Amino acid sequence: MNEQSSFHMTPEEFRRRGREVVDWIADYWQRVESLPVLSQVRPGKVRAGLPSQPPAQGEPFEAILHDVETVILPGVTHWQSPNFFAFFPANASGPAVLGELLSAGLGVQGMLWATSPACTELETHVLDWLADMLGLPARFKSCGNGGGVIQDTASSASLCALLAARERATGYASNERGCDGRLVAYTSTQAHSSIEKAVKIAGLGRANLRLVEVDETFAMRPDALARRIEEDRAAGLLPCFVCATVGTTSSNAIDPLPEIGRVCREKGLWLHVDAAMSGTAAICPEFRQILNGVELADSFCVNPHKWMFTNFDCDCFYVADRAALIRTLSILPDYLKNKATESGAVIDYRDWHIQLGRRFRSLKLWFVIRSYGVAGLQHHVRRHVALAQDFARWVEESSSFVLSVRPPLNLVCFRHVRGDGLSSSLLERLNASGSLYLTHTTLNDRFTLRLCVGQTNTEERHVKRAWETICETAKELEKGGPV
Amino acid sequence: MNEQSSFHMTPEEFRRRGREVVDWIADYWQRVESLPVLSQVRPGKVRAGLPSQPPAQGEPFEAILHDVETVILPGVTHWQSPNFFAFFPANASGPAVLGELLSAGLGVQGMLWATSPACTELETHVLDWLADMLGLPARFKSCGNGGGVIQDTASSASLCALLAARERATGYASNERGCDGRLVAYTSTQAHSSIEKAVKIAGLGRANLRLVEVDETFAMRPDALARRIEEDRAAGLLPCFVCATVGTTSSNAIDPLPEIGRVCREKGLWLHVDAAMSGTAAICPEFRQILNGVELADSFCVNPHKWMFTNFDCDCFYVADRAALIRTLSILPDYLKNKATESGAVIDYRDWHIQLGRRFRSLKLWFVIRSYGVAGLQHHVRRHVALAQDFARWVEESSSFVLSVRPPLNLVCFRHVRGDGLSSSLLERLNASGSLYLTHTTLNDRFTLRLCVGQTNTEERHVKRAWETICETAKELEKGGPV
Repeated sequence: MNEQSSFHMTPEEFRRRGREVVDWIADYWQRVESLPVLSQVRPGKVRAGLPSQPPAQGEPFEAILHDVETVILPGVTHWQSPNFFAFFPANASGPAVLGELLSAGLGVQGMLWATSPACTELETHVLDWLADMLGLPARFKSCGNGGGVIQDTASSASLCALLAARERATGYASNERGCDGRLVAYTSTQAHSSIEKAVKIAGLGRANLRLVEVDETFAMRPDALARRIEEDRAAGLLPCFVCATVGTTSSNAIDPLPEIGRVCREKGLWLHVDAAMSGTAAICPEFRQILNGVELADSFCVNPHKWMFTNFDCDCFYVADRAALIRTLSILPDYLKNKATESGAVIDYRDWHIQLGRRFRSLKLWFVIRSYGVAGLQHHVRRHVALAQDFARWVEESSSFVLSVRPPLNLVCFRHVRGDGLSSSLLERLNASGSLYLTHTTLNDRFTLRLCVGQTNTEERHVKRAWETICETAKELEKGGPV
Repeated sequence: MNEQSSFHMTPEEFRRRGREVVDWIADYWQRVESLPVLSQVRPGKVRAGLPSQPPAQGEPFEAILHDVETVILPGVTHWQSPNFFAFFPANASGPAVLGELLSAGLGVQGMLWATSPACTELETHVLDWLADMLGLPARFKSCGNGGGVIQDTASSASLCALLAARERATGYASNERGCDGRLVAYTSTQAHSSIEKAVKIAGLGRANLRLVEVDETFAMRPDALARRIEEDRAAGLLPCFVCATVGTTSSNAIDPLPEIGRVCREKGLWLHVDAAMSGTAAICPEFRQILNGVELADSFCVNPHKWMFTNFDCDCFYVADRAALIRTLSILPDYLKNKATESGAVIDYRDWHIQLGRRFRSLKLWFVIRSYGVAGLQHHVRRHVALAQDFARWVEESSSFVLSVRPPLNLVCFRHVRGDGLSSSLLERLNASGSLYLTHTTLNDRFTLRLCVGQTNTEERHVKRAWETICETAKELEKGGPV
C-alpha cells in the first residue's frame, strides 16, 4: 500500500495544512472585530449546509477549510471579538492556543503520574506558581497538605468540593452507603446555577440547598448563613458545605470571606470559594483584597479560561487537604496499579476529579504565564477593570441609565431609567445589530443589562463605541420608534 | 503604548511561532518511534527543571520551546508512539489535531445554542453521522426523541446515564429531595472503575452497586443479573440502572446486549452501554455484531478519542430519550435565558452534561471523518484487529505463553506459562527497556499481560518487533538471569 492510499495525512501535508490553519486563525483574529458578534443564523441553518451522510471516501483538506468559512463561520458567535461583552469572557491568546496545539500533538493521558510524569508535574508546579500569584496561603500548595489541579470548569470543581465535604461530614459513609437526605448545603441567592446542579448530582437534593439572603451589594449575609445553619441543626439535619462566590455571575458581587469563613470554622462546614472569573483580578496587588479570608477556605477555584488569556478548558481548583479529596474520589482497579503509585511519592490526578482521562492542559497555562510574565497579565487585567470603571462613570453621568450596583471590578450592571421594557428592547436591538454582544440578568426584580470587559483584545475604543451605540440605540427607542 | 510593550503576541509572531509548533509536532511524530515509550524519569525530575517562581516579565517563545524539549519531553510517556500497546490507545491524527487547533482559535462556548449555533448544530449533525456509521438505531438520532452529545470521557457519560436512570426511577424526586439509600445499580465484575465512581458521586453508595458474575469469556451473565435484581426487589430496594460493557478494559469482554437488554426491558431498568474503545470496531460491517442488542439500550457511549484517530477529549454519548436527560440536568437561571431557548427549536447542550461551559469539540471529529472517509477509518480499524489476531496466533503457537482468553478484537491478554512471577518481571523489564509499553491486569487471579493494538501509526513491523522483544526478554528471564 502506498502512502497515498494509507488514508493518514502525511507529515508533509500536516506541515502544510497546519500552516494554513495557523494563518486562518491569525486572519480570523484580525478580522473578527468586523464580524457580527452574535451569530445571525436561524435554527437549522448550519445543519442545512451539511450533507446528511458522512463521506465514504476521504475528502481533500481544502474542501473542509472551505466549509469552515462558508458553513461554520456564519454560525459562530464570536467570543474572541473585542466587542464581546456578554456573560463572562472566555478569552484566549496566541501562547495559549499554541500550548493547546502542542498538547494535542503530544496526545498524552495524565490520569496517573506514570502515564506521563511531565503532565502531572508541570500541572502541580504551575498551579503552585498561580497560588503565589494570587496570594493563596501555603496550605493550598503542593508543599503542604494541599495542592492544585486543573479541572474543566468551575461546575466540576464545585461538584468535587461538595463531594469531599459530603464525605468529610459523614465519615466517608455516603460514598459507601449513599446519601440519606440529611445533608445540607449553603450558598447565596446570587450563586452560580452550577451549585444547584452539583447538589442534585451529588444526591443531596435541591430541597437541601439553602439560598442564603444577600445584602444591598448582592453579597451573602454571614449572619443569615449562621442562622440558617443553626435552624437546620435544630431540625436534625447535617449542614456540610458552603459555597461563597468572589464575583457572582449576575452582578460580580463579592461574598465576605472573612465572616463566612469564621462561620464555617466555628460550625465545622467545608468552605468552597468560587472565584471563577474575578479571582484573576487578585494577581494585581490593588485588587488582592477580594480574596481576603480565603485562608479560612477548604477549597478554591479560579478559571484562567475566563480572564487569564488561556483558552477553555482550564479551571484551577485548590484544596487545603488533598487527602480528603483523594479519599473521596479514589478508585484503584488492578489495571491501573503501578510502582510509582504504590510508592506514594507521586500525585495521580485521576483521584482529584470526576474523569479518569485527562489531557496535558497545564502546557497552555505555562505558555501564557511565561509569555506574558506576571507583569503582562497584571497590565491587561488592570486595563480591563479601568475600562469597566470608565463605562460605569459614563452610566452614572447619563440621564438615561442608572447603575444597578456599584461595579467592583470589570462587570457593569445597568438599566434604562424608563424601565424593563425599554431595557429589554434595547438589549435585543443591540445584539441584533451585530456590533456588540451584551447579556442580561435580573437584579431586584429589574431587567438589567450586563457589560463585562475581559476579552483579550478589548481596548478603550471598543468600550467607547459600545457606549455610543448603546446611547444612540436607546435614543431611538426613547423616541418611541418601532421597538 | 507600542505593540512591543502590549505584552500580547503579535499576529506576525503568532504565525511564525504557530509554524514552529506545527513543525515541532510533525518532527515529534516522525521521531517518536525512537524515544523510550514509558518515560524513564524519577518522581520530581521534571519539577526540578522548573524555576520555583513564575517570571515577572514575559519570556521569548524560543525559551519556552527549548524547555519543552529539554524539561518536558523526557517526562513524557509517548502515547503517540507506534510502540504504545498499554491500556487503551488514545490515538490522534493530523486532521484531529488541526480541528482542535481551529477550535482553540475560534474559542467559542457552546453551552447554549445561541452562544454559537454552529458549535451545537455541527455536534448534533456529526453525532448523527456517527450513529449511522455504527448502525445505531434511529431512536438515538436527533430526528427522533434521542440524540448525541460530546462528553469529555466515558466516566462522565456513565455518570450522566446513571443520573438520568436515578431520576426516571424516582419520578425525578432524587433531584429534589436527595437519595434515600434504596436505589441499586448493576454492572459486571469486569466493568470499568468509573461505574463505581459514578455510583459514589451520584449518592447511591458503593454498597448499592452489584458486581454481577461473568462467564468464562468475562462477559456479564444475564441470568445472574436477573436474579440479583429480583433479590434486591424482594429486599425492598429500587433497582434502576445497568451498565453493560462492549469491550471491558481488563480483557475486552463483550457483554451480551440482547439478553441483558431483555432483562432491563422486562424489569424497567435503564440500560447504559459503555463501548468506549471497542464501539469503534462497529463501523466495520464484519464487527458490527458486537453492538447487536444496542436497540434495547437507553444510552450508549463510544470514545473516538480512543480508537478513532480523534485526540482527547471526545466521548460520544447517545440517549434514546433526551427529555429524561435534560430534565435531570437542566438549570435555567435568568442570566442564561434567551429567545432561542424559549422557542424550544434548539438544543442547549449545557443540559446534557455536568459542566456548563463547553468547547467546539465536534470540529475535530468532523475533520477526522471527512479526511479519512468512512472507508479510511474502516481500513485502519481492520488492520489493528488483524495485527492483534496475528499476535494472538503467535502466542498460541508459543511454548512460553498462553492466551488468557480468546481476543475478540484488538486487545490480547496473555501470560507466561511459568507463572505470575515471571509474567510480572517480564512486564517490568519490557517497560524499562523503553522499546514498548504494555500494561497488565488480573484475570482468574493470574497476573496477565495486555497488548492493545490501536495507536494511529502502529504497523505490522511494530507488532512483530514487540513479539520478538517479548520472546527474547522472556528467554533471558527463563534462564534465571537476574530479574
